[in-house]
Amino acid sequence: MKLSSWIPALDWMKDYRKDWLKGDLSAGLTVGVMLIPQGMAYAMLAGMPPIYGLYAATVPLIIYAIFGTSRQLAVGPVAMGSLLTATGVGMLAESGTEAYIQLAITLALMVGLLQLLLGIFRMGFLVNFLSHPVISGFTSAAALIIGFSQLKHLLGIEIPRSHHIHEILFQAIEKADQINYATLAVGTSGIALILILKRINRSIPGSLIAVFFGILLVWLLGLSERYGVKIVGKIPEGLPPFSVPNFDGASLRALMPTALTVAFVGFMESISIAKAIQAKHRDYKIDANQELIALGLAGIGGSFFKSYPVMGGFARTAVNDQAGAKTGLAGIISAGVILLTLLFFTPYFYYLPKAILASIIMVAVLGLIDIQEAKHLWKSDRRDFAMLLTTFLATLILNVEQGIGIGVLLSLGMVIYRTTRPHLAILGRIPGTPFYRNIDRFADLEVRDDILILRFDAQLYFANVNFFRNKIEELTEGKEGQLKAVLISADSMNNIDSSGIHALEEVAESLRKRGIRLYLIGLKGPVRDALERSGFTQKLGKENIFLRIQDAVHQLDQLPPLREVDEVYYR
Amino acid sequence: MKLSSWIPALDWMKDYRKDWLKGDLSAGLTVGVMLIPQGMAYAMLAGMPPIYGLYAATVPLIIYAIFGTSRQLAVGPVAMGSLLTATGVGMLAESGTEAYIQLAITLALMVGLLQLLLGIFRMGFLVNFLSHPVISGFTSAAALIIGFSQLKHLLGIEIPRSHHIHEILFQAIEKADQINYATLAVGTSGIALILILKRINRSIPGSLIAVFFGILLVWLLGLSERYGVKIVGKIPEGLPPFSVPNFDGASLRALMPTALTVAFVGFMESISIAKAIQAKHRDYKIDANQELIALGLAGIGGSFFKSYPVMGGFARTAVNDQAGAKTGLAGIISAGVILLTLLFFTPYFYYLPKAILASIIMVAVLGLIDIQEAKHLWKSDRRDFAMLLTTFLATLILNVEQGIGIGVLLSLGMVIYRTTRPHLAILGRIPGTPFYRNIDRFADLEVRDDILILRFDAQLYFANVNFFRNKIEELTEGKEGQLKAVLISADSMNNIDSSGIHALEEVAESLRKRGIRLYLIGLKGPVRDALERSGFTQKLGKENIFLRIQDAVHQLDQLPPLREVDEVYYR
Repeated sequence: MKLSSWIPALDWMKDYRKDWLKGDLSAGLTVGVMLIPQGMAYAMLAGMPPIYGLYAATVPLIIYAIFGTSRQLAVGPVAMGSLLTATGVGMLAESGTEAYIQLAITLALMVGLLQLLLGIFRMGFLVNFLSHPVISGFTSAAALIIGFSQLKHLLGIEIPRSHHIHEILFQAIEKADQINYATLAVGTSGIALILILKRINRSIPGSLIAVFFGILLVWLLGLSERYGVKIVGKIPEGLPPFSVPNFDGASLRALMPTALTVAFVGFMESISIAKAIQAKHRDYKIDANQELIALGLAGIGGSFFKSYPVMGGFARTAVNDQAGAKTGLAGIISAGVILLTLLFFTPYFYYLPKAILASIIMVAVLGLIDIQEAKHLWKSDRRDFAMLLTTFLATLILNVEQGIGIGVLLSLGMVIYRTTRPHLAILGRIPGTPFYRNIDRFADLEVRDDILILRFDAQLYFANVNFFRNKIEELTEGKEGQLKAVLISADSMNNIDSSGIHALEEVAESLRKRGIRLYLIGLKGPVRDALERSGFTQKLGKENIFLRIQDAVHQLDQLPPLREVDEVYYR
Repeated sequence: MKLSSWIPALDWMKDYRKDWLKGDLSAGLTVGVMLIPQGMAYAMLAGMPPIYGLYAATVPLIIYAIFGTSRQLAVGPVAMGSLLTATGVGMLAESGTEAYIQLAITLALMVGLLQLLLGIFRMGFLVNFLSHPVISGFTSAAALIIGFSQLKHLLGIEIPRSHHIHEILFQAIEKADQINYATLAVGTSGIALILILKRINRSIPGSLIAVFFGILLVWLLGLSERYGVKIVGKIPEGLPPFSVPNFDGASLRALMPTALTVAFVGFMESISIAKAIQAKHRDYKIDANQELIALGLAGIGGSFFKSYPVMGGFARTAVNDQAGAKTGLAGIISAGVILLTLLFFTPYFYYLPKAILASIIMVAVLGLIDIQEAKHLWKSDRRDFAMLLTTFLATLILNVEQGIGIGVLLSLGMVIYRTTRPHLAILGRIPGTPFYRNIDRFADLEVRDDILILRFDAQLYFANVNFFRNKIEELTEGKEGQLKAVLISADSMNNIDSSGIHALEEVAESLRKRGIRLYLIGLKGPVRDALERSGFTQKLGKENIFLRIQDAVHQLDQLPPLREVDEVYYR
């Protein structure tokens, strides 16, 4: 093992090219500037004081830059992670209280440890078990929940925390007479401003500009004092202090389900963003297990400096890349921007209206609602559409953790369902040729009464042996006397296990008793080997195994063996 | 739906042939006589007074005969069900007490309800998720546990109930000085007698003969009074009384895990025996869902007549068949034998030594320990051997419920593992021919530097798209300029989902950017349809989809299209 496979930053450090610096600097500054308002906004979403969003945007970024394999992934506080934190910790403590903050930091440590362990034990493949429709449905629902959770800040009214959109809406309608129109005006202006600037150029720090005007407006017009527009207020100055996170048994047990969810979702989100960006560059590689380790270390390290759970963010990564980031140095520069802000600029955010933070969040999650994918699946794959819709509804109706859980179970169920009922085709001959095709796909095929030709399009193993046995049973039932042989074309049977071999033995025996022969056609290497090892080949008789269907048919018809131009096929 | 699909007994009732009666009568009497000692023995194993084994051998048999699809399956108290009852209920109450008995009967009701529900919702396919090695490992371990649990009765010493063989052995050795040699002599003689009679002819009711001689010996020699040989004692006379099982929330919750296990294991055991016997006869059909319904109704009905959980038994079914059972009438006759015994003969079992019951159980479970299968798998399939061994050890070391749970998880894990890392072959040309084969399987194949030909031997779906992408990435990396095209031979790609199509799109895009073309070869019907529907075919261009590898290679080499004798293949 090379040292650079543990510390991927060494790769770009030792070959650092001067012309990368401009890109890294520009990207690092842009993302850093973007992070100031986003960090505060996401902290608010997570139920934490704004300063904690800035803390989460320092140490983790530096650690990820050193250990991460992606050179553009922008790690830090993100909407999804903040929502999950709010959901999980919100069940254990009152949001914003000291206990709540401590739990959120412990959660970061737990998530980090889980990810680190998963990485060390090379469990990165776990991410395979979330299908695209499930991710899409989950993300869209989470985005809606996040968006609606900000309604209270946008309207300037009190709405108790809820994960149910309809409850939030009812509350909002009920309290429509309490709407603070100054707040609403500030918030909607913020949304409009950010959207317009985004349309002009994604790299414009629209949210910072909105923050700037928001502060200016509130300060100049005295919106806070005169109209009750809620502001962020005093943010403490100074670097994130070192402190050991709480780590008592009771908190650990209570936080475990949330930690598992955040670890899993965080990794999934980060790795998919990292891979998408890597595909554009191709001058480095993404290693899923090293990503887990890097995210894990970032979380653990961060938790000692007051950081709540972090992950890779979609929008900031895109901006980072677009602004020219070439290496992890960009991330370190972004962290530097936040550190400077913490040291010198926090007093300037005193008048920052919460409605502006809400508008930043709402615009950010708007892009996560993926109607296009749902439409596309509706047209192209109804089963996948049903998975998307179920996950979407489960997330909305139950809660985000159960939503993703149901999504994973659905995905696994689908794996299993698909393999238990594989495709099985009855083949017929193309008249006048030695070629056999699926009778459901080709018209005018010759099908003989005395020979049944089946193609089993899957590995034969314990989960589908019953299907296999039942199908053959069904198709041969009552055909004793008439049927001479069953031919199983096995060229798409990719594998077989001991249950599969048992099933073949039973089928062969059951057919033999009824005077029907069993021929196996075109066995693949792994299947041929397994049948040899188990002794089945010898039991069935090598004379009942053929390379091509036409050879078996010729033998049954007692015709001389085939010789053809493609004799070499027999090798 | 025909009435006879709900009540399969109607099928044999309406066509009942006179010559069946002799077989049914003889089988029914033989099994009934076998059931007397077995019922009492299994009740003892389940921690119940012996009479409850006889109760369990009445009503459930009659109900199964009416609703079951198997005509030979002998339902009733069996070793596995009794062990699971003892394990599950033993955690909640002192065995043999009234509370214990009530819980065991409630368990029967719960198991019945679960099976009935599973049957109504057509979940019979669930049995697919136990692979043969897992069942074998579990059964062998459970048989060992059952066998050792009887050691105390055989040695006539007190050993506290334990599921750990080593604990039982330690206790037995520690108390070796307390061994009751009269008891041991009776028990070992019983074992020897049953084994010898079994070897002569399986249909001899060996256990009843052992019971007869056991009672005679104890009575004549006064073994109970003089040497302290433990006897069954007074068994109440009379039919099983009707009584509504307890059904309170607390018991339900506490029993649920056991009920799920018994429902699942009972169904699995019953259906596999039923199918094995059906394969011999073929004059009726087994329907998995109807079997669930029949077992469910048998359990529910039984629980109202003091029955604990029942299932299909291996040995009794074999005897039933061998003695000539042709229909469910045999089962009804067996139940009649037990009812008569309950009415008139229970006093005669007063002197029955418990050591004889232990010997009956020990012989019964001896046949369940399957060393042959383990040996066979060791030789033919190491992965399946590992599954067998793990389930075996988990069952022995943990307990039976966790053992089967781990087995199911292992099986599911294997399903998933197998599908996430499918077989992928690089193909080369057989020199001088247009045929392409796996370069790992065939020697001397031609492999070109400018064309990479891959065969993906699995459906392409979310669980293996990462594997697919990574492999192609790996194989094409650094080959820009040199590599002209990647050909994916998809004739064993049986299906594709939306994640698979996304992956194909990404791969095509990534290759395109590097000046490498992607060709798809030999797409199957379902895959072709899915690609059409999603618009991928149009995006890739129909000119990049071929039916055979040689066609794509010819096009790349700008040779004229192939025309051959098997031109019809192109259809």
